[in-house]
Amino acid sequence: MKISELSERSGVPVATLKYYIREGMLPRGAATSPTSAEYDDEHLARLRVISALAGVRGLPLSRVRDILALIDTPLADPVATMGRAVSALPPYVDEPIADDRARTAIAWAGLTYDPDFAAVGQLETAIRAVENAGLPWDEATLHRYADPMRDVAAAEVAPTARQTPAEATAYAVLGTALYEPVILALRRLAHQHQLELRPTVDEP
Amino acid sequence: MKISELSERSGVPVATLKYYIREGMLPRGAATSPTSAEYDDEHLARLRVISALAGVRGLPLSRVRDILALIDTPLADPVATMGRAVSALPPYVDEPIADDRARTAIAWAGLTYDPDFAAVGQLETAIRAVENAGLPWDEATLHRYADPMRDVAAAEVAPTARQTPAEATAYAVLGTALYEPVILALRRLAHQHQLELRPTVDEP
Repeated sequence: MKISELSERSGVPVATLKYYIREGMLPRGAATSPTSAEYDDEHLARLRVISALAGVRGLPLSRVRDILALIDTPLADPVATMGRAVSALPPYVDEPIADDRARTAIAWAGLTYDPDFAAVGQLETAIRAVENAGLPWDEATLHRYADPMRDVAAAEVAPTARQTPAEATAYAVLGTALYEPVILALRRLAHQHQLELRPTVDEP
Repeated sequence: MKISELSERSGVPVATLKYYIREGMLPRGAATSPTSAEYDDEHLARLRVISALAGVRGLPLSRVRDILALIDTPLADPVATMGRAVSALPPYVDEPIADDRARTAIAWAGLTYDPDFAAVGQLETAIRAVENAGLPWDEATLHRYADPMRDVAAAEVAPTARQTPAEATAYAVLGTALYEPVILALRRLAHQHQLELRPTVDEP
């Protein structure tokens, strides 16, 4: 299809498509003449991924580009690829910070501490925000979240054993970003369900 | 303390403090003369909450203001208060959308379906993003996330039985927003832990 049809079918303006191509986020179409190119379903699929990351996930386009680059050209080490993908997700920690809260929490949880992994700084800032808001933070609170997340991660990683390395990378990188809003929406729904279940108590 | 000292101790510029006061996000200080007012630790505490929501959580200031207003003046019904708080969190669903994916998922999970609750549209857009990225979505995948989130929510709601209504509201509204980055950072760390645990496999 021509770029005009790609625009129509994807709902993305032609100027935006050209921007994505310039930025390397969308592959060039196959040239059919010096001034036109042919696009296909792969381009439509890539645009749906961009829309999921930029729209629903709300990531800045520069971060979307980082994630797409990892899917197109993963690093040699899967742990490094995931590390790079995670650093494209919020909260963004621009400068190195003391990570003693995160380090303690990781030890409590029995997880692996690697000071270079972006999620360590992200956990540190998340714990500081909890403390700054006056919310509880202690070992019991950590286990409330860490234990289920260990089980979730184990279940999520299992299918990658049956995937090709390229499939496993796309699944891991996109899955990290895109199941997050699902998890959070389900927690919010579960809170509401709990409140609805409660017997009404008259205030004293 | 004077506003200059409040600025110094909080690290928030005086102009920003005045903006927060105008917007009703920070209470006025006690007037000590027609041109000066006295601020206290309550103001510092409120500024830490604003920083947690706007900085770490990355919420737009208009949404931070909505959340603070709910803490200061909760609605009569706790379910309605939580509904309003959840609608201040991303993903923002500006127009009503068909919610059949979310409705099915809520039925699978055994949760309560209320079409007016913001998390329903948030779950719908989250599931669509998963599907658009070509990631798996089915009943087994839903249970992978919904079952642990039911347990998490039950554990989170339990302490509110011992709190005053005002405490319970602040805990519920802030806890919904501020434990989310903790949960996500822990999932990312658990992924990395899983990858590190894996035996290295030579590619064929």
